[in-house]
Amino acid sequence: MSTQKLHMGIIGAGRIGRVHAETLAFRLPEAQIAAITDLNREAAQALAARCNVSNIAESSAEILADPQIEAVLICSPTPTHADLIVAAAKAGKHIFCEKPIAHSLGQIDRALAAVEAAGVQLQIGFDRRFDANFARVRKAVATGEIGVPSLMHIISRDPAPPPIGYIRSSGGIFADMTIHDFDMARFLIGDEVEEIYTAAGVMVDPEIGLAGDLDTALVLLRFRNGTIGAIDNSRKAVYGYDQRVEILGSKGKIATENCYPNQATVSSADAVYKDLPLNFFMERYTESFAAELRSFVNAIREKRPTEVNGMDGRIPVQMALAARKSYDEHRPVRVEEITA
Amino acid sequence: MSTQKLHMGIIGAGRIGRVHAETLAFRLPEAQIAAITDLNREAAQALAARCNVSNIAESSAEILADPQIEAVLICSPTPTHADLIVAAAKAGKHIFCEKPIAHSLGQIDRALAAVEAAGVQLQIGFDRRFDANFARVRKAVATGEIGVPSLMHIISRDPAPPPIGYIRSSGGIFADMTIHDFDMARFLIGDEVEEIYTAAGVMVDPEIGLAGDLDTALVLLRFRNGTIGAIDNSRKAVYGYDQRVEILGSKGKIATENCYPNQATVSSADAVYKDLPLNFFMERYTESFAAELRSFVNAIREKRPTEVNGMDGRIPVQMALAARKSYDEHRPVRVEEITA
Amino acid sequence: MSTQKLHMGIIGAGRIGRVHAETLAFRLPEAQIAAITDLNREAAQALAARCNVSNIAESSAEILADPQIEAVLICSPTPTHADLIVAAAKAGKHIFCEKPIAHSLGQIDRALAAVEAAGVQLQIGFDRRFDANFARVRKAVATGEIGVPSLMHIISRDPAPPPIGYIRSSGGIFADMTIHDFDMARFLIGDEVEEIYTAAGVMVDPEIGLAGDLDTALVLLRFRNGTIGAIDNSRKAVYGYDQRVEILGSKGKIATENCYPNQATVSSADAVYKDLPLNFFMERYTESFAAELRSFVNAIREKRPTEVNGMDGRIPVQMALAARKSYDEHRPVRVEEITA
Amino acid sequence: MSTQKLHMGIIGAGRIGRVHAETLAFRLPEAQIAAITDLNREAAQALAARCNVSNIAESSAEILADPQIEAVLICSPTPTHADLIVAAAKAGKHIFCEKPIAHSLGQIDRALAAVEAAGVQLQIGFDRRFDANFARVRKAVATGEIGVPSLMHIISRDPAPPPIGYIRSSGGIFADMTIHDFDMARFLIGDEVEEIYTAAGVMVDPEIGLAGDLDTALVLLRFRNGTIGAIDNSRKAVYGYDQRVEILGSKGKIATENCYPNQATVSSADAVYKDLPLNFFMERYTESFAAELRSFVNAIREKRPTEVNGMDGRIPVQMALAARKSYDEHRPVRVEEITA
Repeated sequence: MSTQKLHMGIIGAGRIGRVHAETLAFRLPEAQIAAITDLNREAAQALAARCNVSNIAESSAEILADPQIEAVLICSPTPTHADLIVAAAKAGKHIFCEKPIAHSLGQIDRALAAVEAAGVQLQIGFDRRFDANFARVRKAVATGEIGVPSLMHIISRDPAPPPIGYIRSSGGIFADMTIHDFDMARFLIGDEVEEIYTAAGVMVDPEIGLAGDLDTALVLLRFRNGTIGAIDNSRKAVYGYDQRVEILGSKGKIATENCYPNQATVSSADAVYKDLPLNFFMERYTESFAAELRSFVNAIREKRPTEVNGMDGRIPVQMALAARKSYDEHRPVRVEEITA
Repeated sequence: MSTQKLHMGIIGAGRIGRVHAETLAFRLPEAQIAAITDLNREAAQALAARCNVSNIAESSAEILADPQIEAVLICSPTPTHADLIVAAAKAGKHIFCEKPIAHSLGQIDRALAAVEAAGVQLQIGFDRRFDANFARVRKAVATGEIGVPSLMHIISRDPAPPPIGYIRSSGGIFADMTIHDFDMARFLIGDEVEEIYTAAGVMVDPEIGLAGDLDTALVLLRFRNGTIGAIDNSRKAVYGYDQRVEILGSKGKIATENCYPNQATVSSADAVYKDLPLNFFMERYTESFAAELRSFVNAIREKRPTEVNGMDGRIPVQMALAARKSYDEHRPVRVEEITA
Repeated sequence: MSTQKLHMGIIGAGRIGRVHAETLAFRLPEAQIAAITDLNREAAQALAARCNVSNIAESSAEILADPQIEAVLICSPTPTHADLIVAAAKAGKHIFCEKPIAHSLGQIDRALAAVEAAGVQLQIGFDRRFDANFARVRKAVATGEIGVPSLMHIISRDPAPPPIGYIRSSGGIFADMTIHDFDMARFLIGDEVEEIYTAAGVMVDPEIGLAGDLDTALVLLRFRNGTIGAIDNSRKAVYGYDQRVEILGSKGKIATENCYPNQATVSSADAVYKDLPLNFFMERYTESFAAELRSFVNAIREKRPTEVNGMDGRIPVQMALAARKSYDEHRPVRVEEITA
Repeated sequence: MSTQKLHMGIIGAGRIGRVHAETLAFRLPEAQIAAITDLNREAAQALAARCNVSNIAESSAEILADPQIEAVLICSPTPTHADLIVAAAKAGKHIFCEKPIAHSLGQIDRALAAVEAAGVQLQIGFDRRFDANFARVRKAVATGEIGVPSLMHIISRDPAPPPIGYIRSSGGIFADMTIHDFDMARFLIGDEVEEIYTAAGVMVDPEIGLAGDLDTALVLLRFRNGTIGAIDNSRKAVYGYDQRVEILGSKGKIATENCYPNQATVSSADAVYKDLPLNFFMERYTESFAAELRSFVNAIREKRPTEVNGMDGRIPVQMALAARKSYDEHRPVRVEEITA
């Protein structure tokens, strides 16, 4: 087995940990899983067996102490991210961390400082940047194919809300769901958002409102370069996962459609119909998950900066806090107002 | 010739006057043009010849004094609308008036009071309500096909801005262009807008900014029933007229696409392409213009209320004023704040 | 009223006669209906009243004898076409005749000879040539946009079979239904068909088979220039009228989709669907019917050849006879084999 | 490592051998590559290194003699298939063999007899059956969603012809290219083809004609159950790989579209366009290649019949011979006429 393979440790064997582990095991010949750990040891064992990994670490500390491991995947719950980043950075490991880094800027800044001090690489798990549709839109903007952007729309709706327990610890819709769209907005336009105005409500499930959260939102963005955008979020679209963007520019527009399990259309006596779009992120972004890890593994092996760095992890959190503040105070809020 | 035909007088032989006259002459057997007038007598003569109309009236007063004429079409410039409505109402004529009635609520209320006092019918020229696409969307909402609406988008972009001279006397983008979308928002959701927040800018032509107007806008709407909507306006979409809506409801979504001159797709060595959408409102809404007149003529003949009444003419103007106020004051504005 | 209007007589006030009369009356200012006749006098009266025509002729002879009438529309049943063409030609009238001229080449040739001897113009009612979709396809071939054609498909399916009584006198599926597609094939490719092979059956209704006819067919065409084509016909498509073409050329392909009553798509919990396509030819080809008459009227007024001439009426009948012969003899048949 | 993994030997490390090896190595935890062989030893070594396989066999004989190997993948050139099947069957190995088994029925029957005598399983590499689009169409037919089929179309065009050297040894367009469509026709309709009529020509490259082959074809099929179908083949579609099917049934139709690298549409000042479809079978059928191997591996492990058996390999070859005979003799040919 080649010594050039990147040896990685996986911290967290939950749903997203499993996705990443399978990618590393079965789709990325350039990487090797050296160890897996999870507080739930059975989950770690099952995943290790699935991926032909012999080493089940007792703890993240054991992984960080392993000199053979060059990089770690942090797939544990959000509250552990910042501390794990700090510890991994101190241990000299490169880091791939799921979003969000944390729910407060203070914690994020502490983590980013540790990364900077250690000189390691950090990539945040904004997988959608690696989706073929959104990459095509970014290309249309970056190459000038549609000229200078003026108006942007992001539609991002989940098929169904998560359990109310998840909602309660999620940090709220903006930190949990819109955060992907905040990242997408910055990525697609290639500029920063200056001001946010939020209109939102509870239209899907009153329980979500009782938990202090919102389930439906239209978030208006004003970019530094003048582009105006809108993010449309709903925790429930009965027809499935709805993930589209559209940008109007001075030379044209680009718009994406959802992805479907097949390209068949049936015409019956009642309607012309097709099957529902791919239902949720595991189906819709299968290839994006693989592509972001490939990008990370290759960045580390080739000593290049990662494609989604620490500031890319920080700014969407700041935007999420601004979006909530705008809703709470019923006024447009400048992103720079959020400092902690 | 049947005496049951509705005898109509046309005031204004400009572009929209010509459209309506041709509809009456060539597509509506139930109506008859009794007279045409225009300050530009040559325009009136040309239109009369085109439509086989022998009576060219000297003035609107002559038309209003004609006892044979049961209804008038007001197609003259906006500043004349309110006075003409008042005069026509006093003369006992039913009235079809192009939008907007006026740019201020005071003038509009004066006109509506005259209509009410005279007991005549008034229809406002919001032709898009009669478009097959938007009618289908309204049906999906009204019948419950998509359940309770939560999020709405209206995309409404012109192929190119009008001449700067037109811009200066237009009343501004909200009164001139968004007004159609304000009407559409009310029509589609079947509810009133409570609050408006406007993000806007000058991104198409700096001359428009120098004239004190805006050319690009995202107008966020909050309806009484909780629905949140966004209207996307641009004075310039290089690919042509862009007129789409989308509504998310508790049971599904409905979305419309643009209309194209043909349904052909070409696949070349470079791309898979189709021709541009129908370029502007004269092509896109040809059938809507005919349908709104058919609706008016039949409402009068059958003594039914018109489908687009005086309040339908007033409220979008109020919304336009609120949209501008929101932009000027950089805050959400309640529609009821606008009282004059 | 302008003396430049083309004065026309209408022979036959059935369904297609009504369509053409309304076009002349309400959409073509360049034409004037001078008289209408029908063996069913009530039908003629109703249509005359509808179109503001005062002259109801006793017979086609009366129309042909009227010196004011410059052109006639032959909308009577097929068996009368050839004789009426001969009579109209002898009377010096220009002729618009519904398809087919006749079911035998002998009758057609007699009619065409009379037209040629009289030096009048003849246009055959192949309205689909004037459809925006098919015109766009023809343009792509004629301009070289898709290069040299090699393969062609025509899908042409009716929503439901006509009454069995109609079937019995229709001349069979090839003469009645495929004839439009034979015309389309020649028109789109701009070349003649050399050989035909037919596979067909009775799959819709056994009654059609008992009447000696077929209801489902795939007709393979070989053009002189080498292009190979297929016409797909069914008397029944439960989802409505299906009218599409596709051509592959050396530089690309062009394909058309059906026309829909609106451009709305609904996404429900079960499927993503749209309304059925426009149901049948009266809805689908509304504009084509108007355009073909406009073309005829203008050709006569401007002394230009018509766009669909006598040979365009003859050759599809010859092809229809070849298609049936191929089916009967279970072999490819050269079109030139059909001589009577 | 689990002893339940299916141990497989790969014979042939060319393009398709590489595809299958990577699937086994990186996507099918249930299988294990025990050995790879190729006459070109370097190719075998490169593939083994890529897939972490330590055993490079000297010959197919060595693989067949290995008692640990339960199944073989035959990915060598077509002329070797029949002999290898016979040898593998005698060695008691289950067999996955690329299409076609051979170009003559005699050779095929010899191979199938050996398979039957040995009681091993055989699967033929008709990967398209495992494509999501075609599987959806099959489902619509099999479940009765579109009722009883009457008309079928298969469009199957390559982006560019293979090198002329390949053409010369390919067995001709029907055996090399249409064979996939013959399989698809049987699979989709679930019935056998009784008679074939072929119209074809050389329209892409005269060199192909000089090599005795054709490059453009319309093959008309008549199934036993009455369904009529057409296969449209071209060796060159400049816009890329064109793979679509459509079936009309008594209760509706189902039609598939091509697959695209992304779902983005750009609207410029010239056209509304999207990127070209996925270019060729390696991109288009990536998932089908994986799915067919998964199906084979699981069939062997679970002692079930394979989904594409020996007769599924024989009949399309018979159809290809009938298609050519029809072209040569310019008449419809019954498939049963082909006996050798």
